[in-house]
Amino acid sequence: MTLKRLAIIGSTGSIGRQTLEVVNDLRDYKVVALSCGHNFSLFRKQLMKFKPDYAATLGDAVYLREEFPETIFFFGADGIEEMLEAAMPDAVVNGASGAVGLRYSLKAIETSKRLCLANKESLVCGGKLLIEKAVQRGVEIIPVDSEHSGIFQLMIGDSRPEKIFITASGGALRDYPLEQIEEATLEEVLKHPTWSMGKRITIDSATMVNKGLEVIEAHYLFNYEEKDILTYICRNSLIHGGAIYRDGVIKLHVGEADMKIPIAYSLSYPVRTYSSPHIKLDRLTLSLEEIDYRRYPALKLAREITGVPSKQIAYNAADEVAVKYFEKGAIKFGDIFRIIYRVVEKVFEASPHNFDEVLEIDRFSRKLAEREVIEL
Amino acid sequence: MTLKRLAIIGSTGSIGRQTLEVVNDLRDYKVVALSCGHNFSLFRKQLMKFKPDYAATLGDAVYLREEFPETIFFFGADGIEEMLEAAMPDAVVNGASGAVGLRYSLKAIETSKRLCLANKESLVCGGKLLIEKAVQRGVEIIPVDSEHSGIFQLMIGDSRPEKIFITASGGALRDYPLEQIEEATLEEVLKHPTWSMGKRITIDSATMVNKGLEVIEAHYLFNYEEKDILTYICRNSLIHGGAIYRDGVIKLHVGEADMKIPIAYSLSYPVRTYSSPHIKLDRLTLSLEEIDYRRYPALKLAREITGVPSKQIAYNAADEVAVKYFEKGAIKFGDIFRIIYRVVEKVFEASPHNFDEVLEIDRFSRKLAEREVIEL
Repeated sequence: MTLKRLAIIGSTGSIGRQTLEVVNDLRDYKVVALSCGHNFSLFRKQLMKFKPDYAATLGDAVYLREEFPETIFFFGADGIEEMLEAAMPDAVVNGASGAVGLRYSLKAIETSKRLCLANKESLVCGGKLLIEKAVQRGVEIIPVDSEHSGIFQLMIGDSRPEKIFITASGGALRDYPLEQIEEATLEEVLKHPTWSMGKRITIDSATMVNKGLEVIEAHYLFNYEEKDILTYICRNSLIHGGAIYRDGVIKLHVGEADMKIPIAYSLSYPVRTYSSPHIKLDRLTLSLEEIDYRRYPALKLAREITGVPSKQIAYNAADEVAVKYFEKGAIKFGDIFRIIYRVVEKVFEASPHNFDEVLEIDRFSRKLAEREVIEL
Repeated sequence: MTLKRLAIIGSTGSIGRQTLEVVNDLRDYKVVALSCGHNFSLFRKQLMKFKPDYAATLGDAVYLREEFPETIFFFGADGIEEMLEAAMPDAVVNGASGAVGLRYSLKAIETSKRLCLANKESLVCGGKLLIEKAVQRGVEIIPVDSEHSGIFQLMIGDSRPEKIFITASGGALRDYPLEQIEEATLEEVLKHPTWSMGKRITIDSATMVNKGLEVIEAHYLFNYEEKDILTYICRNSLIHGGAIYRDGVIKLHVGEADMKIPIAYSLSYPVRTYSSPHIKLDRLTLSLEEIDYRRYPALKLAREITGVPSKQIAYNAADEVAVKYFEKGAIKFGDIFRIIYRVVEKVFEASPHNFDEVLEIDRFSRKLAEREVIEL
């Protein structure tokens, strides 16, 4: 059997590390290229274990060359793109974070046959660019996000659903008194009800900015209008998503919140080769609840700007800035939405034509957000 | 567009009537052949409305010939088979009741390209015969039962699930005191918690004989061992079935209990053309519960005999006889299982080679059951 040649972008991040665990289990893949940002100590261990032909680091780690003479190294901002061009892998897992991930996604489409996409910004900031390029080149984009992977899995082999939906846990403040939510503390916001994740994503769960971003992603990935991408709260996070068909049939995607499952699926699709135990069904309760936009105005805002690329970029950038200040204790919880809202309002409607234009709007939005923090 | 030519067996029964409603809505089908048992007054109306080229009645209704000179009629036990041979339809909906339905299913496979199967006995009494013949001839069997249709819909386009499951409402006695269940009255048994159906099926829900038959059907339809066909109680009957994949992913089929939906799907598969509203999702609760075999010993018995055709036939036949006597007030609720158990025990293990052998075992089992009623 020929092993599939895999490149992983962001191999020292959460998605990257879990991808390597999956690859280790599946044994159908040869890791030919690995790239990281600045976590060189973990990267060194990965290079030792997986012995890729190519490697790239965003930071300067030229010393690795001597330690791994059989690996060809690339460095700096262009390094990851050069690595993909040299490797020409069968599939690329993009686990980069931030808007720069779009750049790698675009390059992955030029150099590979499948993009396993975990970088949210690729779709939020450059969804139109990315999807058009993928269609032109006949490259598959397989989502890695559990919600989108779920919907992708449900949609295969059936008529196109009329509507799709994704779920949210509701975050740490789902039962918090609505009139006090503005003042919720960082400590309270970080108590996620169903699982532990990084700080930004946990805060984004409480505001539902993450769900807003996912609605935007779904819009580009599956080509649905915003109004046909529904969102519900699922308190135990076991329902990831659903598909609603014209005949009233609803298919639900249910399971443990384990990112290795959608990662493995994105690699092995259209088949499943990964093994993982399923949740117990003999005492299962699932529920869906309506989302109250008074509690989650950021989700409503995301819906209003879905399909307007410049505002989507601004939404994501402003949130990142605002969350950073909230983490520092410099602003209130309620200010996060306030900042996003003001930045999104000030950014003109535009549709960038390439990554540089995306980056420009991203930087401009960040500056606006920093100013809003000062002017609060 | 060429209309698909459809034959309906049992057109005056519940499945037949609903099929005609669906056909009326979809407008992609021309009803070329209709058959009924003895409900001639309704059949007359159907003939007037759908003007089929061919018609058949089990009972003697030769007078219809004069009223519908443009329809070719067939009568009596062989009439339905002759009708199918004459019509050579694109699809046959088999909504007949009883073991005789197997005969029509076998003929449908000889004369058509698709069998939309609602007759349980076809699989319970002749599953092996039927599936082998369908495979040989390349004829599709699309299940009409909501549970099996659900699983069929979930299985399309994905890796084969490791396990599948169907749900049961638990019937009228699901919360009845276990030690008094033997003595439950007909009135109590007929109070189905989630929907109203015919008497036998309502009683079969309380004993879970219906679920036992469905496990057997699933065994033949989907080629799973009995142990990989799970059963759970779903109290609101909104989950019809599920598929469990090796990576822990679970897909659920959810929706209203409306038989027109799976009927339409069996006709339009692989696409969906029927329209029906979906259940509200913004306050949805779904649950699965383990089934207690002390309450439902008939389900356990069905599992034990799955794959043994003669005992499957005996199980179905004995239940029909026992239910008849329970309806009359001649036996206790607990006697239904007692009779089935004894008949199934007495019938030898055998695998009939044709419909006549099936019928022989069916008749023998009914005689045994009648005797058991007397000897109680």
